[in-house]
Amino acid sequence: MVNSIVLPIKKVFSLVETKINIEIKDERRIFVGKLVAVDEYMNVHIEEAVERIPGEADKSHDSLVIRGNNILSIAPAA
Amino acid sequence: MVNSIVLPIKKVFSLVETKINIEIKDERRIFVGKLVAVDEYMNVHIEEAVERIPGEADKSHDSLVIRGNNILSIAPAA
Amino acid sequence: MVNSIVLPIKKVFSLVETKINIEIKDERRIFVGKLVAVDEYMNVHIEEAVERIPGEADKSHDSLVIRGNNILSIAPAA
Amino acid sequence: MVNSIVLPIKKVFSLVETKINIEIKDERRIFVGKLVAVDEYMNVHIEEAVERIPGEADKSHDSLVIRGNNILSIAPAA
Amino acid sequence: MVNSIVLPIKKVFSLVETKINIEIKDERRIFVGKLVAVDEYMNVHIEEAVERIPGEADKSHDSLVIRGNNILSIAPAA
Amino acid sequence: MVNSIVLPIKKVFSLVETKINIEIKDERRIFVGKLVAVDEYMNVHIEEAVERIPGEADKSHDSLVIRGNNILSIAPAA
Repeated sequence: MVNSIVLPIKKVFSLVETKINIEIKDERRIFVGKLVAVDEYMNVHIEEAVERIPGEADKSHDSLVIRGNNILSIAPAA
Repeated sequence: MVNSIVLPIKKVFSLVETKINIEIKDERRIFVGKLVAVDEYMNVHIEEAVERIPGEADKSHDSLVIRGNNILSIAPAA
Repeated sequence: MVNSIVLPIKKVFSLVETKINIEIKDERRIFVGKLVAVDEYMNVHIEEAVERIPGEADKSHDSLVIRGNNILSIAPAA
Repeated sequence: MVNSIVLPIKKVFSLVETKINIEIKDERRIFVGKLVAVDEYMNVHIEEAVERIPGEADKSHDSLVIRGNNILSIAPAA
Repeated sequence: MVNSIVLPIKKVFSLVETKINIEIKDERRIFVGKLVAVDEYMNVHIEEAVERIPGEADKSHDSLVIRGNNILSIAPAA
Repeated sequence: MVNSIVLPIKKVFSLVETKINIEIKDERRIFVGKLVAVDEYMNVHIEEAVERIPGEADKSHDSLVIRGNNILSIAPAA
């Protein structure tokens, strides 16, 4: 299958050690941080992260593991 | 099993490199973009995407990975 | 195990090429269409489908793949 | 492991061909019907079923497949 | 891996034949009952159970199978 | 694959026997406690735990197993 060469998770693997945007499902909550590690379930380990929730003050996290099933999307930080 | 010849995911694989509509579960949120890659969990990598939420301004995304479990449906873009 | 002979998914496989009702979880949203393909996760590919949401106008879809985890129930169309 | 002898799903298998109560997650929706088939994911095929939603009229279903991930609990019908 | 020796599910296995508290996700609903069986997905079979929903009368269940994905937490009954 | 060396779950394994913060999906509910055990699904067994829900009194738990699918994030306790 040609598609397996460019699996979506490979795109995420290519972002390790870079700054990413993670949107959480249902909450309009965003985490922006450095992607330290990711696995096939899109569980991610991020560092130096900022958490943004509309209408609330930003929170910072030195080190955080987010379980993949909560993640709507991952993209390179602008 | 005859059905395995025409698995639903095969339909999605056939849409790679074309423009698709992705509807997100529960939110009436739509992403329209070029399908770059998809895997068996319906995780998708899309490019040149527009995100539409009713009552909000459209957002554009150069490159975005959406986790499959958030996806209600995928269809060819009209 | 006697039960494995009549797995629920076999019932759905028997509906391929017929008109089915699909109810979506949490939303009272119904899709009625011809079942083209289904897999063991209840991912479905339907054609000539109508989407019904209470209080809204019906929408039609030529071809649509619905991810199984969003599906509450599948039944033969009345 | 002693527990594997009495797996919860075995309890459900023992209810095949009997009348059961199925409660749907989040909705206080109940299906009462004859359990025709069930698999390890608790996907169920029921027949001669009645669907009860608080504050609404009952609906009847000749034959219905419910995807297991929507099911909160299964019990013998009182 | 040292951790695999003390898997969380082993803690739940150790509670078989004892009275447990089960909290359901999102609903503040609690089931208190004797744990008859549990599997690796935390599907549970309980007996002589009481169901408590804030602001409602308690309900009793002779025998009930709860699908694991609905369970937030399991603990020994106080 | 280089990434597999530093899987996100390894970060969580490294927190066993230390005090952690667990945020529950959708509820702004936090558990702070000693991580006794964790598995690959992020099911966790915690002890000497405090449960915090905004606007409610804290609750304490001697021993609690939380099913991984409810967990949004895990981090070292500040």
